[in-house]
Amino acid sequence: MSSLAKLTVRNFARTFTRSYSAPTEGSIPHAKQKYVPSSGTYPKGFSVSGVHVGVKPSNKSKPDIAFITSDRPANGAAVFTTNKFQAAPVQVSRKVLESRNGAGIRSVIINSGCANAVTGNGGVEDANKMAEAATAVLGETDASPSSLVMSTGVIGQRLPIDKILAGIPKANSALDSSHQAWMNTARAIMTTDTFPKLASTTFTLPSDASTTYSLAGMSKGAGMIHPNMATLLGILATDAPIAAPALHSLLTSAVGRSFNSISIDGDTSTNDTVAILANGAGAPSSVKPISDPASADYAAFAATLTSFAQHLAQLVVRDGEGATKFVQLSVRNASSYDDAHKIASSIARSPLVKTALYGKDANWGRILCAIGYTAGISDGAVVPEKTNVSFVPTANSATKDQGVLKLLVDGEPQTVDEARAARLLEDEDLEVVIDLGTGSEEATVWTCDFSHEYVTINGDYRT
Amino acid sequence: MSSLAKLTVRNFARTFTRSYSAPTEGSIPHAKQKYVPSSGTYPKGFSVSGVHVGVKPSNKSKPDIAFITSDRPANGAAVFTTNKFQAAPVQVSRKVLESRNGAGIRSVIINSGCANAVTGNGGVEDANKMAEAATAVLGETDASPSSLVMSTGVIGQRLPIDKILAGIPKANSALDSSHQAWMNTARAIMTTDTFPKLASTTFTLPSDASTTYSLAGMSKGAGMIHPNMATLLGILATDAPIAAPALHSLLTSAVGRSFNSISIDGDTSTNDTVAILANGAGAPSSVKPISDPASADYAAFAATLTSFAQHLAQLVVRDGEGATKFVQLSVRNASSYDDAHKIASSIARSPLVKTALYGKDANWGRILCAIGYTAGISDGAVVPEKTNVSFVPTANSATKDQGVLKLLVDGEPQTVDEARAARLLEDEDLEVVIDLGTGSEEATVWTCDFSHEYVTINGDYRT
Repeated sequence: MSSLAKLTVRNFARTFTRSYSAPTEGSIPHAKQKYVPSSGTYPKGFSVSGVHVGVKPSNKSKPDIAFITSDRPANGAAVFTTNKFQAAPVQVSRKVLESRNGAGIRSVIINSGCANAVTGNGGVEDANKMAEAATAVLGETDASPSSLVMSTGVIGQRLPIDKILAGIPKANSALDSSHQAWMNTARAIMTTDTFPKLASTTFTLPSDASTTYSLAGMSKGAGMIHPNMATLLGILATDAPIAAPALHSLLTSAVGRSFNSISIDGDTSTNDTVAILANGAGAPSSVKPISDPASADYAAFAATLTSFAQHLAQLVVRDGEGATKFVQLSVRNASSYDDAHKIASSIARSPLVKTALYGKDANWGRILCAIGYTAGISDGAVVPEKTNVSFVPTANSATKDQGVLKLLVDGEPQTVDEARAARLLEDEDLEVVIDLGTGSEEATVWTCDFSHEYVTINGDYRT
Repeated sequence: MSSLAKLTVRNFARTFTRSYSAPTEGSIPHAKQKYVPSSGTYPKGFSVSGVHVGVKPSNKSKPDIAFITSDRPANGAAVFTTNKFQAAPVQVSRKVLESRNGAGIRSVIINSGCANAVTGNGGVEDANKMAEAATAVLGETDASPSSLVMSTGVIGQRLPIDKILAGIPKANSALDSSHQAWMNTARAIMTTDTFPKLASTTFTLPSDASTTYSLAGMSKGAGMIHPNMATLLGILATDAPIAAPALHSLLTSAVGRSFNSISIDGDTSTNDTVAILANGAGAPSSVKPISDPASADYAAFAATLTSFAQHLAQLVVRDGEGATKFVQLSVRNASSYDDAHKIASSIARSPLVKTALYGKDANWGRILCAIGYTAGISDGAVVPEKTNVSFVPTANSATKDQGVLKLLVDGEPQTVDEARAARLLEDEDLEVVIDLGTGSEEATVWTCDFSHEYVTINGDYRT
């Protein structure tokens, strides 16, 4: 029985096209096709591949091993899940980076279809074998692995490690730097994703306007998504030259305002990892790596990286399991960034807010409620009489000429034109602005709604 | 159009019998009838009523004002929501108790159909008017109100205060001490509840085995339910004599292990209140009120109250919006009660755990994941290699003779008999035991699953 057939919903006369792991090639939903690039400009010195090994026996042909390689040693950095049950590949990747101080990284090897999480000592051995095989296949003779490892899929099952080890030479043979190779790679890391999440961009640095660098990346994830990473993987690669310590702080900062600022269901996974490799292949030989946080180059790359990571993170929300809405929650005039971020996250996690968005109901009382129960914020961060809530139509909205729809002003409910609110909530995209009036900091979180399909997907995930 | 007709689901060929506010009299679902008592033993000196005033215009006949009165001054205590947006009745009840030091309370006046939350100064005036009218109708001439106030329903709308004030004399005329009067009162506080939650019990105290006291109570709530109270109201009344300071500490402790140990959707409401009145009417005149926390009477009443409050809290979970499962999460051998409670709450909030329960999927990986991302627990509280997870069949389970089903032992996944797991998950009731192996404390949280119907109810709530 195909995975599609299995997902026919038990209680409702409706079928869904989302399936766990390895969606049908070319089956990208029409509404999502606009998020999939048809070309790209990729960083020099990197070649990549996505090949099929059949991690899940039900997967007969879709790529499920991704291999991202640099032709020379790259600096690397990664941000990992904060979950106490850290998956084996998280433990192994962390050690690889630590033992090399973030230098001399040659590749990232990834499988979908099995998370290799909560798999005991055997699981750690498997992840080590993946790192070692990926290292050896590139001709590296160093005893310590130079490959990072990632896995995504079901928790608590051992990897079919022999299949994966047999697949790594196949992945090596398929390495290429074409757009199609990058697309195959992005496809290989998908699980419940309905479309591959791939992006690339070019940029110059203030110190040398004549050298154009490239930054490319991919992400995956559609469920178990909440700040502090989720079964969310992100891999970024650039041919700009960046020193290892700088790369780590640049990535940490960018992830805070991108991947750690999205929530689909509030569940923080055991496997979340975002990694970046910087191989310097695009730089003239005289150029020194970016290392000084006070330099103009550092600031310029930080801005590029943050904005790029936000794009990749937003694609994950666009593909939220069962999502019908893309909602930007902007918390402004807060006493601190941390308070603003916690409040936005609290709203993003509220099942009542999310079901109201699904129901196209301008039920701002639930937003207020979620602001009010935010845990761990500072005293005075929320003052009911200073709180403002508005809905803001986005650029494509049919109601954009009507401007901001104010729901609560200084704690007083406004008389809301319900017909206008209803039209605004027909839009796929919505911005909710919360003005706390207690400071001058702000934070933004992106989230989606909670639908019947979310329940269907996650009630049926393993079966 | 009736509220039932309105709730016909848009996207699915199915209708639901749950409606917002004031369900049809006698429409208690068959499966819930066992939770509704047909008789009771109620505390002396209390009379109660539930009458119709039509807070929501669509409610033509169902009771929506509840009045609980004592024929003599009672000591009172209450525990309120921690939400920063405290509803007007919460602010007013808090002041009544403070200004009277918990003594001289005569009644609790409650409306359903409108929460009187985020309603500005006008809302506070409305709640004050309710307290004053309830005080006056009992013949109290004291300028300071002796009535507590509660409201439950939609946030952000003003009360139809004239209707309510006109209804209070009607509620006063209807006061009675019969089982039917208590049942009408419990019905009057229902919103999305499908059955009234009423209980009563009798008890004696160690110091005087010849005097039998009574404890009665009611609760409401089916959504916006999470520790620290939720649109959850609880009102308890006893004819035992208890001093005001002791009553407050007894209630706080009991609520911690009952109403604050349940979660339906993780949303903490603006209106949550649990109050208790103790009028001493059952005590011989020579008996002094319980006041010493070290006394045997205090300990005995604490045990009675906690167990009784757990029963009322569990009824709320039994009526969780869209719930098909009742799940007891027992976290044992934890480093502290607080850690154990946070971990159990984290599991109870996880949409992925809840949808897996709905899907009858023994997906223990999601339970592990939720344990692992619990925020704010102490270092060393969770050690993967010491963690155990088991499913325990309850007394009525068809699989109870097979005993405990071990899923994870000391961090190692067990080979699970999936057929047996599937049979166990057919049961409405399930216990999940998490043994952390890092201490000797334990906490229990009760929760339910997340279903399509939850999304339907909350996507359609206001409309």
